[in-house]
Amino acid sequence: MINVLFAALSERFEQYEIPLRTAFAQEGISANLATDHDPAVVDYIVYAPNSSVQDFTPYTQCKAVLNLWAGVESVVFNPTLTQPLARMVDEGLTQGMVEWVTGHALRHHLGMDTHIHGQDGVWRTHVPPLAKDRPVTVLGLGQLGAACGQALAQLGFPVRGWSKSAKSIDGITCYHGAEGLKPALKDAQIVVLLLPNTPDTENILDADAMAQLAHGAFVINPGRGMLINDDDLLAAVNSGQIAHATLDVFRVEPLPVDHPFWAHPSITVVPHKASETRPDTASQVIARNIRRCENGEPLLFLVDRSAGY
Amino acid sequence: MINVLFAALSERFEQYEIPLRTAFAQEGISANLATDHDPAVVDYIVYAPNSSVQDFTPYTQCKAVLNLWAGVESVVFNPTLTQPLARMVDEGLTQGMVEWVTGHALRHHLGMDTHIHGQDGVWRTHVPPLAKDRPVTVLGLGQLGAACGQALAQLGFPVRGWSKSAKSIDGITCYHGAEGLKPALKDAQIVVLLLPNTPDTENILDADAMAQLAHGAFVINPGRGMLINDDDLLAAVNSGQIAHATLDVFRVEPLPVDHPFWAHPSITVVPHKASETRPDTASQVIARNIRRCENGEPLLFLVDRSAGY
Repeated sequence: MINVLFAALSERFEQYEIPLRTAFAQEGISANLATDHDPAVVDYIVYAPNSSVQDFTPYTQCKAVLNLWAGVESVVFNPTLTQPLARMVDEGLTQGMVEWVTGHALRHHLGMDTHIHGQDGVWRTHVPPLAKDRPVTVLGLGQLGAACGQALAQLGFPVRGWSKSAKSIDGITCYHGAEGLKPALKDAQIVVLLLPNTPDTENILDADAMAQLAHGAFVINPGRGMLINDDDLLAAVNSGQIAHATLDVFRVEPLPVDHPFWAHPSITVVPHKASETRPDTASQVIARNIRRCENGEPLLFLVDRSAGY
Repeated sequence: MINVLFAALSERFEQYEIPLRTAFAQEGISANLATDHDPAVVDYIVYAPNSSVQDFTPYTQCKAVLNLWAGVESVVFNPTLTQPLARMVDEGLTQGMVEWVTGHALRHHLGMDTHIHGQDGVWRTHVPPLAKDRPVTVLGLGQLGAACGQALAQLGFPVRGWSKSAKSIDGITCYHGAEGLKPALKDAQIVVLLLPNTPDTENILDADAMAQLAHGAFVINPGRGMLINDDDLLAAVNSGQIAHATLDVFRVEPLPVDHPFWAHPSITVVPHKASETRPDTASQVIARNIRRCENGEPLLFLVDRSAGY
């Protein structure tokens, strides 16, 4: 019998208890799953960075911390965390992100807002170009960025991608490194941000980067709020360099009511709901990782603590 | 030298003249292309049903009428038309339709309008289900319906399709005939109409058909206005049986300003712009068909005059 601590907001346990017990049973794991354990006997921590557990020192027997979130920036540099940390790579989250990014890319591509707002009896007959004439750039080619880029390519968009280190992904023209950023962004009409939040990626979409895009480009950010320089974005939507930005993530969440993004006609605020971890599929990932660890196999999705993701 | 009459609204000739001449040259066709010819010497008519040519009797030497539109209902039963009639099957039109249908299906699936309209500072955190849990039914499995259904299946939606006669299409569970309609619609959450306009399909989406759908379903009609019983649709959006309808086509176009669809909060009127024939790709289809006819080969996309499409 292994002891698994569920350390997340209490309402999450209502969502996760049954899926986790089901997944443990499927993997043949006999677990004592609870939201409260003596720290000294805990074998694994299923973890959300906003839980009350912020000091990992007492968990002396803990073999791994299994994050419920894809993003680890608020736990990866915790100095008390000496245990291995695994990111969540949930196919449900990936699929939800593909649907959200594809939907908003098509919304901007087709100019849907004109009709959603404009039910005024005016017969507007502008027809948009085809996707093949609408270049898209995805910043970030991890699990999420690669999947979204490939879905957009499948629909006919010419897709470029950019990542810190070199990648090769079917259907995506890949750029990398500091010197690859400008060519990746050059004349793009839609840019999608799906980078991790690291010191290197903070403010990566600033005035200089936005100036590379085609005039009247669209920004879609379901990644992290810190990726965008907010003041530069406001200047760019005001000048028309950016026609519209759809933002799902912000430096402060919930986004304060008086933040200028809410009222701006060229910015759509979405309340961090682009996608989320799905209990069924995420529980399977956690159970699989515990089973691997118990069998002495390497953890899946182990975080590189020096890279920060 | 063959004589090709371009019979469409005059502004179309400005769009089509160069693409048609280019396509004729590529197919090795030496053509005298004009908007005005002595009817007795015309070999082919490139035709839009809203052109001034409504009497085909004087075109005694005409070998084929090549429609610029996918829909032929306003020409196919013209009693003066004795020449073979070809529909337009334009890959540009198909691709544009796939983009439009996929975009609006995702818009409704994701509940985008809540955020597009609701920039009021309220942090709404509802997350939609995944596409795999959102059944879609496509009525009509011709070139357009099949392509749209397959694109939606590719994104993860479970897709059923319905057509008059039996079809088999990868990724789509196919139903057909009068007895297949109800099982095709049963519990669908999104229904897409891409049927031809025939006496059999008029009012196919009526109160009975809408009652088969899941409560709160979405209707997307880029096909033909006559496919929907307008009064039944208004009753269904008022009762909540249909959560929202996005309509691109109407019985009268432009839709009159005082039509109740314009003002209804659960109906989005789009001014017949879901997709249109693209001059470059459509001209290639027309040139290829003229070349085939000159070589004694059968016409592509020949209309079955008895079926009406």
